[in-house]
Amino acid sequence: MSESDIGFQAALEEARKGASEGGVPIGACLVSADGKILGRGHNLRMQEGSPTIHGEIAALNNAGRLPASAYEGATMYTTLSPCDMCTGACLLYKVKRVVLGENSTFVGGEDYLKQRGVEVINVKSAECEDLMKKFIKEHPGEWNEDIGEQ
Amino acid sequence: MSESDIGFQAALEEARKGASEGGVPIGACLVSADGKILGRGHNLRMQEGSPTIHGEIAALNNAGRLPASAYEGATMYTTLSPCDMCTGACLLYKVKRVVLGENSTFVGGEDYLKQRGVEVINVKSAECEDLMKKFIKEHPGEWNEDIGEQ
Repeated sequence: MSESDIGFQAALEEARKGASEGGVPIGACLVSADGKILGRGHNLRMQEGSPTIHGEIAALNNAGRLPASAYEGATMYTTLSPCDMCTGACLLYKVKRVVLGENSTFVGGEDYLKQRGVEVINVKSAECEDLMKKFIKEHPGEWNEDIGEQ
Repeated sequence: MSESDIGFQAALEEARKGASEGGVPIGACLVSADGKILGRGHNLRMQEGSPTIHGEIAALNNAGRLPASAYEGATMYTTLSPCDMCTGACLLYKVKRVVLGENSTFVGGEDYLKQRGVEVINVKSAECEDLMKKFIKEHPGEWNEDIGEQ
């Protein structure tokens, strides 16, 4: 698992797209056990006024309705440590692995994912970290809103 | 906390609406600390082909973008024990209490909510249970899809 993975690259492209739209720069991509992209997307809080369309939720939405078997052995790539909601979404659909870009700007439900048997890999991407640092510096209020903090 | 609560009644109305649309009959309603309805909605898997718009997510979406302070002391009413994703959404926004209609047809993240300090109340509504039993009997495949089960 590395930054060159197709799933990670797609998640990163989504994060860049989010940044270019002036949104929260977090992207995600759901990849099936056999390596196919099922869905990808990025946080749409600012673009669509949505409190629930985080990157991972966008990727799941984009994948559409699927039977449980489609998620079997799947990997959720995300550019940032997943928040509690996105952690829960990965658990609901029983993805096998969560690959995250970085967790230096935010730590979500990694421990709980591991407790529930999900493999968690941090690729420690400098670009993911830079995207978040820039956004948090320029939009501290919007960032706090996105993670439910005052 | 009882079935006559304004929040619970709104959640139940949403569940009935979902049923009348042929969808998964689960509704939810987010109520602020001072008793105002912030948002309400129902599961839209079948109506909109969405794998993420469960009742609680719909209620949060309908409430729109809010600062963390707006969720302080809030209660999420839902007609069914919340799945892992909706459990996580309640934790992300730090609602104080989750009031659920029933947990005889499905048990979600109640224990985890309690571990994280959220009050959980089961009003054991016969109507909520009947709505779910009917749906599960008539649409077992769709129900399994909604909870990520084979």
